[in-house]
Amino acid sequence: MKPYLKEHPWSIIEEGFDKTKHEISESVFSIGNGHMGQRANFEESYTGSSLQGSYMAGVYYPDKTRVGWWKNGYPEYFAKVLNATNWIGLKLVINGTELDLNTAEVLDFTRELNMKEGYLYRTFTAKLSNGNTIKVEATRFVSITMKEIGAIEYKITPANFDGEIDITSYLDGDIINSDANYDEKFWAEVNQQASGNEALVTVKTKKLDFYYTSKMQTFVETDGNIIKPNATSTREKYADVTFQAPLTQGKTTVIYKYAANVTNRDHDNDTLEAVATSKLTDAVAIGFSALKTAQKDAWDKKWQDSDIVIEGDVSAQQGIRFNIFQMNQTYTGEDARLNIGPKGFTGEKYGGSTYWDTEAYCLPFYLATADERIPRNLLVYRHNHLEKAKENAKKLGFTKGALYPMVTMNGEESHNEWEITFEEIHRNGAIAYAIYDYVNYTGDKDYIGELGIEVLVEISRFWEERVHYVPRKDVYMMHGVTGPNEYDNNVNNNWYTNRIASWTMSYTLESLRDLKASNKELYTKWIDQLELKPEETTKWESIIDKMYYPVDEALGVFLQADNFLDKEIMKVSDLDPKHLPLNQNWSWDRILRSCFIKQADVLQGMHFLNHKYDLATIKRNFDFYEPMTVHESSLSPCVHSILACQLGYQDKAYDMYLRTARLDLDNYNNDTEDGCHITSMAGTWMSVIQGFGGMKVIDHELHLRPFIPGQWDSFSFKIVFRGARLNIRVTQTQIEVTNETAVDLDVKIFDETVHVSGNDTVTVATK
Amino acid sequence: MKPYLKEHPWSIIEEGFDKTKHEISESVFSIGNGHMGQRANFEESYTGSSLQGSYMAGVYYPDKTRVGWWKNGYPEYFAKVLNATNWIGLKLVINGTELDLNTAEVLDFTRELNMKEGYLYRTFTAKLSNGNTIKVEATRFVSITMKEIGAIEYKITPANFDGEIDITSYLDGDIINSDANYDEKFWAEVNQQASGNEALVTVKTKKLDFYYTSKMQTFVETDGNIIKPNATSTREKYADVTFQAPLTQGKTTVIYKYAANVTNRDHDNDTLEAVATSKLTDAVAIGFSALKTAQKDAWDKKWQDSDIVIEGDVSAQQGIRFNIFQMNQTYTGEDARLNIGPKGFTGEKYGGSTYWDTEAYCLPFYLATADERIPRNLLVYRHNHLEKAKENAKKLGFTKGALYPMVTMNGEESHNEWEITFEEIHRNGAIAYAIYDYVNYTGDKDYIGELGIEVLVEISRFWEERVHYVPRKDVYMMHGVTGPNEYDNNVNNNWYTNRIASWTMSYTLESLRDLKASNKELYTKWIDQLELKPEETTKWESIIDKMYYPVDEALGVFLQADNFLDKEIMKVSDLDPKHLPLNQNWSWDRILRSCFIKQADVLQGMHFLNHKYDLATIKRNFDFYEPMTVHESSLSPCVHSILACQLGYQDKAYDMYLRTARLDLDNYNNDTEDGCHITSMAGTWMSVIQGFGGMKVIDHELHLRPFIPGQWDSFSFKIVFRGARLNIRVTQTQIEVTNETAVDLDVKIFDETVHVSGNDTVTVATK
Repeated sequence: MKPYLKEHPWSIIEEGFDKTKHEISESVFSIGNGHMGQRANFEESYTGSSLQGSYMAGVYYPDKTRVGWWKNGYPEYFAKVLNATNWIGLKLVINGTELDLNTAEVLDFTRELNMKEGYLYRTFTAKLSNGNTIKVEATRFVSITMKEIGAIEYKITPANFDGEIDITSYLDGDIINSDANYDEKFWAEVNQQASGNEALVTVKTKKLDFYYTSKMQTFVETDGNIIKPNATSTREKYADVTFQAPLTQGKTTVIYKYAANVTNRDHDNDTLEAVATSKLTDAVAIGFSALKTAQKDAWDKKWQDSDIVIEGDVSAQQGIRFNIFQMNQTYTGEDARLNIGPKGFTGEKYGGSTYWDTEAYCLPFYLATADERIPRNLLVYRHNHLEKAKENAKKLGFTKGALYPMVTMNGEESHNEWEITFEEIHRNGAIAYAIYDYVNYTGDKDYIGELGIEVLVEISRFWEERVHYVPRKDVYMMHGVTGPNEYDNNVNNNWYTNRIASWTMSYTLESLRDLKASNKELYTKWIDQLELKPEETTKWESIIDKMYYPVDEALGVFLQADNFLDKEIMKVSDLDPKHLPLNQNWSWDRILRSCFIKQADVLQGMHFLNHKYDLATIKRNFDFYEPMTVHESSLSPCVHSILACQLGYQDKAYDMYLRTARLDLDNYNNDTEDGCHITSMAGTWMSVIQGFGGMKVIDHELHLRPFIPGQWDSFSFKIVFRGARLNIRVTQTQIEVTNETAVDLDVKIFDETVHVSGNDTVTVATK
Repeated sequence: MKPYLKEHPWSIIEEGFDKTKHEISESVFSIGNGHMGQRANFEESYTGSSLQGSYMAGVYYPDKTRVGWWKNGYPEYFAKVLNATNWIGLKLVINGTELDLNTAEVLDFTRELNMKEGYLYRTFTAKLSNGNTIKVEATRFVSITMKEIGAIEYKITPANFDGEIDITSYLDGDIINSDANYDEKFWAEVNQQASGNEALVTVKTKKLDFYYTSKMQTFVETDGNIIKPNATSTREKYADVTFQAPLTQGKTTVIYKYAANVTNRDHDNDTLEAVATSKLTDAVAIGFSALKTAQKDAWDKKWQDSDIVIEGDVSAQQGIRFNIFQMNQTYTGEDARLNIGPKGFTGEKYGGSTYWDTEAYCLPFYLATADERIPRNLLVYRHNHLEKAKENAKKLGFTKGALYPMVTMNGEESHNEWEITFEEIHRNGAIAYAIYDYVNYTGDKDYIGELGIEVLVEISRFWEERVHYVPRKDVYMMHGVTGPNEYDNNVNNNWYTNRIASWTMSYTLESLRDLKASNKELYTKWIDQLELKPEETTKWESIIDKMYYPVDEALGVFLQADNFLDKEIMKVSDLDPKHLPLNQNWSWDRILRSCFIKQADVLQGMHFLNHKYDLATIKRNFDFYEPMTVHESSLSPCVHSILACQLGYQDKAYDMYLRTARLDLDNYNNDTEDGCHITSMAGTWMSVIQGFGGMKVIDHELHLRPFIPGQWDSFSFKIVFRGARLNIRVTQTQIEVTNETAVDLDVKIFDETVHVSGNDTVTVATK
């Protein structure tokens, strides 16, 4: 697709209205605050193609599973992010003709996602079929400071007529999910009422009993005069308030609509409507303007912690800020029951809220840009699901241990494709790795003794049962898995999976030893509580010792899986480009038996366990695998970019970076209308910080090894580390490290220790 | 399930009505004639659980595919056998109370499937809620001599009252398939009419434009007096005729209902109703009794060709006759557009009509029991689908060759499970093998030059592209396949698949050489028409020469696939029986990574290519694999039974035979309510003839090597071979070969030539 968005360092801007791109823009211009989100649907009616979407974090529906052929062990349902009550709706009838940009002539259309201040702005001039021309300016946001509040300011100015406008401000809870498996409606009626300028709709999910109340107040002013509502109406799952206002040429009518959206996830069922009333009253009292100012201030704070500045490349600047903005819109970390869905609040596709993406790609972002409570909550989320993960393992025939689900909302498995659901078990390793990553980054060793050890032991127990001993070869093997590279399925001895399994057991043993040494009492408590037997840890040692890894000694590479070299070994560059992307051009079996790799697999291991491998080994494996990798997962290029930086492959690093940085803004995968690729955005962030920045934490020390692409004048990024916040700016000649806090910090830049005093800046030459 | 059917040599008999077994009986007591079939639904209304089923061979619907996750290459639809107009329906209201065995008290219920004469008979006494007690006798059949005709005789005798009966005889075309993916109705209204004692319903499929006309005439006699109809009615897709008849205690009212069921597969669209009228008129003129006599005569002929007699074991006798009966009901071979569905006319499950079951399991039955035109038509069916098979290969990315579908109705792939649809390609080998099997058995070498060579070349071309060369090892390999053993998926170098691929190429080359030698002109025609290049046949020779086969030299066995010995090798007998069947107790991944085998895989190769392997090799492989085989496909035991006979494992052979012989009669798999396992019935037949009978054809000679299980006094079977029909009777002491034709034949019994003159019997001692 031809890029249609305007380049700007702080905003996403669409100029001119193109109906064919509207659904893409609805995704891109989505707003969210971690608690709820809203696609960039128009407030007024729109009869063209649109994917209406309003989502509340953690409110989901167990949609009945749809499969062609049932396999034993499949879950009965697939948890879907729930599309919920439309709270933004306005029906505007001007001198008898309804405003609808699908039928009106649209002039001077601009849509702006203001990322600096966190709101969506839209302006246009519309010429209606009755000849009336109006100018509209609409601003809306979902508040960060009052999570349950959404607010809209909608201004209408007649350009060429005097007349009348009928304004119907409504709440509509009669919503379906576009991805419902059987076209069922998931919401049932509870209550709807309207009076004065207020309306309320309470609905509940047909299963699981999520209750959701939206309450709104609407105010209309024409030329400074308050207009009173003249009618209200309700029907099943719907309520509205209607105003009739005079329109005078050149004079502006302003609609303010405030909505409080509350659920019984956060409040008692029987208080929901009262809570909504209270929250709404507060918001109305504060008023649109002050709420918007508070929004700006809150976003200022977020940018202070997480901004990346790229000088000399506005397109790259806009791309990276868009990624950071979406990450911050999606997950704020205050609520350990929540996680990061692949589409965030921008669409429904893929259902569920949690994939291994969270641990493998998103955690580092929150580690380096937020208070440590926030990444810790991502760990606690998995700890909260431990019992469900143990049940999942039992369901699949294991006598002990925990297998975390591939996709989940509440800890139960939602996915139903055997080669992934049952076989892509490396996810369990990523969940263990996240504990290491968190402790390594934050130094919060206490987490192990508090909660971490329980998860580590149960995952290690899973691996213990999942491998099998092969007496003829005196090794342990793991058969029937799918690695991160989903372009091969049901393989034996996927190197990455064997490696992360063995690593998990090592880290668990190490954590147990550390805990025993540091807090014998706590250690004993856990041993008792977990009923951990010496035979178990001995068995883990034996598995670690005798784990089989497929390798090719001659090439000096780890093999992705058994018999990998029996494949027809080719490079992506050997393919006629018409075959790409493979997933759109090749049948599935052809993809599977080819050597082509969807996303980093052996290299994912080199990335996670980077400290365990020397550069020469990483290089041999990178040189072998990267040319076979098609990067058809949005999660792939970032890992390659980071490793390429480490290996000094600067062009490759930049090339890989570009493949994700503007993925949604430029709709590279031609699917942004379904929603944005939220989790891969964290990968883009990693490419900058861990790749170009060369950031690593080794033995409690922050390491940097920056490299700046030739295309940029400078780039700078923020990281929080052990109480300090650094702003690291890299130019073509030097590295400036500014300590924005009072906490002194030693940083290793190119392996040399640099002391950065509080509120000081240190400059080092680039290499 | 406890067996509930009575043992009888010629009939299946159910005594006493058990609602919980009704749907099983509906399958077991199904009737069919190759053109149409009917589950054993009651004629009168029944409000209990029932699977209504009336099927017309070759009439199908492309139901929209349902999958959880789409894979490139999946077909858009799954062809479903179509449940069609209910032509048997009678609504019977006795003194105001409707006859319904779900609510009436049922006494003296007997249901009988008379296999000798080919009809379904039912008698019962029902006490209605109004106290009226009636005795009913119902007989029905679908005619073999008039394929489109079904006929019912339904007798009602009041036991304790005089009164009145309202009889509504109807046709109902408003039918759904119980296996519809989206609960859609597949039939649309065309025409319905009723007058006098006649009614007609024409419906058409919503896609593909199959038109289906049912026309009926109904006659009612009470105590010898003809009752005139008193009303008719129609509504969408429905028509009926109503009679009102007096009932007198002890006097019998008889209903005769004749239906002609015709489709535009056989007749022009615009003549359908006229054809139905003509057929119906003929049938009515012949009358129920004469039609039933003709039915008996036609079945006599079938039994003459295909009966197996087992003396001393009524249960085994009944089981094998049931299998033969169902085979003959399902496929009669006159119409090369038809094939053998896995459920025949007894249910809807599995959709489609053709699996590799036809070639691998069913063909031998028709080869040995029917005129050679009939098995030949099974080959022609595939030849007719060659263009579709070539399109299928193209769709999956091949530049040439043919890949026959896994499941089909019209030659297009219907299946949608990647590990089967795209990977279970050994089916292509079975289709080539069937040509060999046919020519070897019948001696009809001309078939190769007529049609066979085209199929062989295109399949060989497919294999040529499907293998790949591995330079490091100087071998050809085949990756990413699923063998006959579906309990492992996406394996590399499945021995069976590699072997049958290589064999296909060898047989194709041999057939080309033979054709060249025997008919140079025809050979040249085919070379030109197929554009067969010398490079291609040279390549096939190279692949045959360098095909890689996984073997273990130490064990002396062929390995099912690469790395098979890295699995945890166990025997089924090592498992706690509570784990069996695995497919109901283990998650799919656990099944996949275990060593357990669903159905013969390496041994399927030993069976097909039996002449290529010595006994010691077969024994080593049998001894290795059979103990790991769970036989959870109904197609598995027969192959093991045959090989066990060959190896002299008499107990194992009998044990394996028992596992299929009464599969449906005793509902072993607890799924007979979905329909009977038609294709595995042919396997049961093979167990007797090729296993216990030891029948083989080698170099145009019929070989026998009989062995009789100790449980039997004798068994005898019929085979047609090269113009002769033999009845071979095996007792514990001798083998009697009776030539029922005038054609002399030499037979090799235990490798010694025995001359059997026309109409003579020769006796040989058993070994």
